[in-house]
Amino acid sequence: MKKSFIETIDNDKVGDDMFQLMSELYPICRSITGNGVVESLNILNRHLPLTIHEIPSGTKVFDWTVPKEWNIRDAYIKNSKGEKIVDFKKFSLHVLNYSVPVKKKVSLDELKEHLFTLPEYPEWIPYRTSYFKENWGFCLSHNQLLEMNDKEYEVCIDSSLEDGNLTYGECFIEGEEPDEVLLSCHACHPSLCNDNLSGVSLVTFLGKYLSTLSLRYSYRIIFIPGTIGSITWLSRNETNISRIKHGLVVACVGDPGMSTYKRSRIGNAEIDKAVEHVLKNSGKPYEIVDFSPYGYDERQYCSPGFNLPVGCLFRTPHGQYPEYHTSADNFDFVRPEYLSDSFSKYISVLKILENNKRYSNTNPKCEPQLGKRGLYTAIGGKSDTNADQMALLWVLNLSDGQHSLLDISERSGIDFDRIKDVADILQQKVLLQELQK
Amino acid sequence: MKKSFIETIDNDKVGDDMFQLMSELYPICRSITGNGVVESLNILNRHLPLTIHEIPSGTKVFDWTVPKEWNIRDAYIKNSKGEKIVDFKKFSLHVLNYSVPVKKKVSLDELKEHLFTLPEYPEWIPYRTSYFKENWGFCLSHNQLLEMNDKEYEVCIDSSLEDGNLTYGECFIEGEEPDEVLLSCHACHPSLCNDNLSGVSLVTFLGKYLSTLSLRYSYRIIFIPGTIGSITWLSRNETNISRIKHGLVVACVGDPGMSTYKRSRIGNAEIDKAVEHVLKNSGKPYEIVDFSPYGYDERQYCSPGFNLPVGCLFRTPHGQYPEYHTSADNFDFVRPEYLSDSFSKYISVLKILENNKRYSNTNPKCEPQLGKRGLYTAIGGKSDTNADQMALLWVLNLSDGQHSLLDISERSGIDFDRIKDVADILQQKVLLQELQK
Amino acid sequence: MKKSFIETIDNDKVGDDMFQLMSELYPICRSITGNGVVESLNILNRHLPLTIHEIPSGTKVFDWTVPKEWNIRDAYIKNSKGEKIVDFKKFSLHVLNYSVPVKKKVSLDELKEHLFTLPEYPEWIPYRTSYFKENWGFCLSHNQLLEMNDKEYEVCIDSSLEDGNLTYGECFIEGEEPDEVLLSCHACHPSLCNDNLSGVSLVTFLGKYLSTLSLRYSYRIIFIPGTIGSITWLSRNETNISRIKHGLVVACVGDPGMSTYKRSRIGNAEIDKAVEHVLKNSGKPYEIVDFSPYGYDERQYCSPGFNLPVGCLFRTPHGQYPEYHTSADNFDFVRPEYLSDSFSKYISVLKILENNKRYSNTNPKCEPQLGKRGLYTAIGGKSDTNADQMALLWVLNLSDGQHSLLDISERSGIDFDRIKDVADILQQKVLLQELQK
Repeated sequence: MKKSFIETIDNDKVGDDMFQLMSELYPICRSITGNGVVESLNILNRHLPLTIHEIPSGTKVFDWTVPKEWNIRDAYIKNSKGEKIVDFKKFSLHVLNYSVPVKKKVSLDELKEHLFTLPEYPEWIPYRTSYFKENWGFCLSHNQLLEMNDKEYEVCIDSSLEDGNLTYGECFIEGEEPDEVLLSCHACHPSLCNDNLSGVSLVTFLGKYLSTLSLRYSYRIIFIPGTIGSITWLSRNETNISRIKHGLVVACVGDPGMSTYKRSRIGNAEIDKAVEHVLKNSGKPYEIVDFSPYGYDERQYCSPGFNLPVGCLFRTPHGQYPEYHTSADNFDFVRPEYLSDSFSKYISVLKILENNKRYSNTNPKCEPQLGKRGLYTAIGGKSDTNADQMALLWVLNLSDGQHSLLDISERSGIDFDRIKDVADILQQKVLLQELQK
Repeated sequence: MKKSFIETIDNDKVGDDMFQLMSELYPICRSITGNGVVESLNILNRHLPLTIHEIPSGTKVFDWTVPKEWNIRDAYIKNSKGEKIVDFKKFSLHVLNYSVPVKKKVSLDELKEHLFTLPEYPEWIPYRTSYFKENWGFCLSHNQLLEMNDKEYEVCIDSSLEDGNLTYGECFIEGEEPDEVLLSCHACHPSLCNDNLSGVSLVTFLGKYLSTLSLRYSYRIIFIPGTIGSITWLSRNETNISRIKHGLVVACVGDPGMSTYKRSRIGNAEIDKAVEHVLKNSGKPYEIVDFSPYGYDERQYCSPGFNLPVGCLFRTPHGQYPEYHTSADNFDFVRPEYLSDSFSKYISVLKILENNKRYSNTNPKCEPQLGKRGLYTAIGGKSDTNADQMALLWVLNLSDGQHSLLDISERSGIDFDRIKDVADILQQKVLLQELQK
Repeated sequence: MKKSFIETIDNDKVGDDMFQLMSELYPICRSITGNGVVESLNILNRHLPLTIHEIPSGTKVFDWTVPKEWNIRDAYIKNSKGEKIVDFKKFSLHVLNYSVPVKKKVSLDELKEHLFTLPEYPEWIPYRTSYFKENWGFCLSHNQLLEMNDKEYEVCIDSSLEDGNLTYGECFIEGEEPDEVLLSCHACHPSLCNDNLSGVSLVTFLGKYLSTLSLRYSYRIIFIPGTIGSITWLSRNETNISRIKHGLVVACVGDPGMSTYKRSRIGNAEIDKAVEHVLKNSGKPYEIVDFSPYGYDERQYCSPGFNLPVGCLFRTPHGQYPEYHTSADNFDFVRPEYLSDSFSKYISVLKILENNKRYSNTNPKCEPQLGKRGLYTAIGGKSDTNADQMALLWVLNLSDGQHSLLDISERSGIDFDRIKDVADILQQKVLLQELQK
């Protein structure tokens, strides 16, 4: 028999496990299509059974078209002595992602138009892409660029950009209800830890854990390329979208910054209330920001034609840490303890969603007599009332069909878990009846 | 002819009268049933004509059952020398309220399981009850307990717990309208001044005063045992509950603390706005707290099946002063000046309810010409406008059916009494027409 | 072809022009009726084509009656030496506005009942009126009063108060739509600069400028006597009032104080949002005050029977500067730079109203592919997104029929002009479709 959601997990172990999985995925050069994604999904599949979907290049998905498939085998710059001074095989960020094939000698001046560096962080290598405009290029440290004095260099990018597929992975965990919780992460970035091996890894272990539980909701977990992936997924699943009752985009969950929640476009959806409740009660600093139409795949889920209740729970927002989209987004920056802290917050949020039901008080006129049911202390007159009695009274008073258990927790200031426990007892005593949605 | 509500009363006198009535009621041992309540209601009946209701033990009232009637004639503990060291006849708190009869010799150890003291206030005697579980016991000061060294004591509680009645008193004061204002106080506590001889006494004199007035609303005043009394009353009056348009639970109105208002469950009912207006304009510190499902009989009136617009206007909230439910809740703690201050706030609240009507401007397009009706100064161009003219303009501008006089007072910042006076003048000039609800 | 609203104007020049027009109007003795108003409207007519309306005395306008027409040719006080010590011909404020004719010798005591001074500002001459009660009088400085020691004086007011007309000027500027913006100013005050030659002058040049533009809304500009003028105008235009979608009462726009906006009675009408947006983004101090039923003609426009979306954008509120309604409201107090600042704020407000449309995203499911339309940068992965891209995304995301461009500007924090420009581009690319109201 599966476990209930209330049971706890070993956070230290899960932090280490996530970190380990990230290490395995790190060297692979992923992109929005191609073998790197496929290889990564195969690794994830060992932890979580995935359905792999392949969508042919050229498929129309809303206003977009699935692009050609990009694969790369090798890429380097050789100096006049024939030495490889930039070598993709050593580090996947070195190539402009989606570079078309090239093999020729070029002058330094011409080459410079194809080189990307970060002058403000001269030791770091940037991550750059050119998905929708054909181009080629290399990314390297600015210090390295300053040392390049040869007149001519040999450049080689052994890539292909051809009709093929866009690949994504999907895991469906069936719960009691057909209503779904969507967990979405982009799995298209190459060797970048926080963005988004951290998200990929957290979602994998979240799915693994959910699979062991007896669940109310069904969970749909998707590993997709950013933007084109969520557009493709929404396009192919349009008829079932109304099943999604709550969702989170998972990214940037391993850095040392505080937890940040970006609200859904709806702004006060149940997922918004649940995450805010968890962060408010976490005892740690946090930040809540309103929806804006820039970021990750929430841009698509929250487009006006869908307007899904999907928020994003990350740590430092993308673009607000200097390591973002550079070689410094590595294993010095992302650490197991931050992964583990994020993981436990996701668990707390899902626990609320699973248990956040509405009840109707079966005895709404005056209080029921709690004493005869063993729910009230016998000696009266004291000035203190214990917390469980207050929880009982709050749940009874607000179970009028208008308030969920989370609403009651917020209104009373009493911990959600205690409110939930008390509701269970009252339901056993037939003083509450669960309401269908 | 009866007086209008606007006339003032002698606050000093009413404070002394309330204090005097409390002194008369203080020695009587009241409980949720029994002769003490009957005797007390008979005393109140000399000030305010009451209908006495008797509900037999065993009557089902919603989820509850009217308990057996408890009566007590004597109770004491005698030491080995035969001296009464605890004597109920000297002070009603000495017996655990609702104790079953007992007469026997007991060892000190056994006795201690039936003794209640307050170690943190060693000179005070606590008030304790055991309404719904049969038990016996004594309350005494902790110092007295420490002096008890005999091996054996004689205990006697000459009480009876038998089928009888639950008794409550009700006074109905008829106004122009069938709509009612409910004033409810619990009258079940023995020798405790603030909780709730203060409330009993204030409501009595409020009723006495209301009886002399020409009233818009009908008033229903009830003196009931806490919890079981309001449940019984609601159960017997269920079909007429919709007549209650406003209500207040009256308790703890004589202590030196500031006035506190606990909102109805609705939160922004007219009674809530009226009390908040009075406290805000009282020039004295005050506090407003939201509804919570613990406290006095508002727990029943505001249960989700009734959800009546009933708030509580007290001074220091119950349980938040150390004297609460102890022998120290006495005539050192409750004083006439605080009773009188509470009384005048209740009067102010009722005055607002009585006068808080809605009007429609009979001349809604542009301002009416006030000058030709003698309502505007003749020389124009000055920079100041007197307050009555502003009140005239506000009442005319907001008398659109959406705003009551209290709304207009709040919106304009002009005193309710002035707004009401101005509305009367405008009604005389046929510039306003009263709206029916 | 007429210019679009986006083009800029020469603020310095318009400030000087307004100041010049005020100088021309200053000496004329205006009142709520009479030749002074007619003469003033004729001067305005040189800048802005006006329709002059004449409404006969005695005409019923709602609860009011159009008064007799007042004209004045001369007025003075002569001392015993026959010297004119107060001379209306030198300064129009010297006569109590609407004084009935008088010519006689009076004792100083009798005279004093007809003299108005400002003891707290002994050098200033007050402005006083007696429109609706027949009276006569003179206004003078308090210092001058103190020097009056003769026993007898000769007073002469060569005025007439006879059946005639109330005169007002109206200018209608036709736009694409029949919906109207109302700009209303009172033109009844004599030699007072801020109140309200500043408003008269600003509205004149605003109308002159609007006439050169290609407009969405039609504009109705009225120069009316205060109170009786707006009542008369509303009475005569009652059937067309529903065309007024936005309006501003224009007064006191030339003093050195900060801009103040008094909201319409509705409080959150589009005009309220537009003005608040302009002031908030002006980079200068400002104040927003709620509607109150005292002030200028908004009292009538916002009476409950009309409740029009009409606010007032002035500088220091009337009555809150000591110069108000005195001879010190002159050309030292009102300066071209303040007039010009007010003018540009009015222009900004109207520019928002003209452009504040609603659109529907023609591609609401996921984002449209901006890159293939040349609206997105080609190299991805950078952490900054330029402001125009953010504006594109905001407009697309919120163009769901619920949000106007002003709403989108407020929500995104992006300048209204940029939002409007981006909406134009998206409309050209057929990604937005304008919604009809």
